[in-house]
Amino acid sequence: MRFDLEHSAHILSRTPGTLRALLEELPEPWPRASEGGDTFSPFDVVGHLIDGEETDWVVRARIILAQGSDSRFAPYDRFRHRARNAGRSLDSLLTEFAQLRADNVALLRSWRLTPASLGLSGVHPTLGPATLQELLAAWVVHDLGHLAQVARAMAKQYREAVGPWGPFLPILTDHELPRS
Amino acid sequence: MRFDLEHSAHILSRTPGTLRALLEELPEPWPRASEGGDTFSPFDVVGHLIDGEETDWVVRARIILAQGSDSRFAPYDRFRHRARNAGRSLDSLLTEFAQLRADNVALLRSWRLTPASLGLSGVHPTLGPATLQELLAAWVVHDLGHLAQVARAMAKQYREAVGPWGPFLPILTDHELPRS
Repeated sequence: MRFDLEHSAHILSRTPGTLRALLEELPEPWPRASEGGDTFSPFDVVGHLIDGEETDWVVRARIILAQGSDSRFAPYDRFRHRARNAGRSLDSLLTEFAQLRADNVALLRSWRLTPASLGLSGVHPTLGPATLQELLAAWVVHDLGHLAQVARAMAKQYREAVGPWGPFLPILTDHELPRS
Repeated sequence: MRFDLEHSAHILSRTPGTLRALLEELPEPWPRASEGGDTFSPFDVVGHLIDGEETDWVVRARIILAQGSDSRFAPYDRFRHRARNAGRSLDSLLTEFAQLRADNVALLRSWRLTPASLGLSGVHPTLGPATLQELLAAWVVHDLGHLAQVARAMAKQYREAVGPWGPFLPILTDHELPRS
């Protein structure tokens, strides 16, 4: 499918409500249950998405749009949220994420991006040159990937509980070796 | 994590709202976009979950609780929804699923299941003997697996659009060979 700016803004705008519907009032110990090791729990994912709103997507879009002498993006800290959100509740993170995302989607729409501006580039510290359109597409896919991760981390808590159904439930064996 | 009946009912009760938040007003062609071949689009997933409400989970739970002379489950048709929902809109399926699920969660709670009743068994046509508790755990995991599938099917529509970000977005290469 070709990139579509309005579709992308729509999907981005729905993520906070989707996570709220899935995670609000989720009883303990589910919010903090992960797939093991350094993998993210639902709580971690919402914190990571907040980090993205504050330090990644819109920040990088501004760098691209500015077209200054240095259009390199700052590296992104995948574990910023761990110290930032110590002591927070999942519900408070969901509320914070919803506000940040609403503001950022409104900002994105306010830019009234043209095909020409979507084609402007910045430089990712690892991946090299990337256009604004690619950045926005990655923002959408990043949301959806972490939504799938939340569902997977929750599902795996019942890996043993499902008994004989395991072979019919492939999510239980997805990402046995975590990637990225 | 050990099976918990109230936690399970809670998670089951949240699935329709989660899918509504993610999929309501989703612009065309996203609702019908799949991972290719026989894989499910978001529209297919909601139809498949409706089939589960009408023909699978509660029906099988009743068979177990009845403890009749034949406690074999009927086979489940994974493609019943394709003919059933021709011409329907995704929004109408979301509404139908929400009603069916609300009724079934209310029914589940009305049974006031005890540890003894959760330990009763039926016979799955392929998997063999299974307890009510395992059936209910599988219902939860099945929901979460299909939620992840919706996110994945949507994400893959932007597989090319993300340009250089592909290696950082593992959902784009999950289930390249569909399983189950």
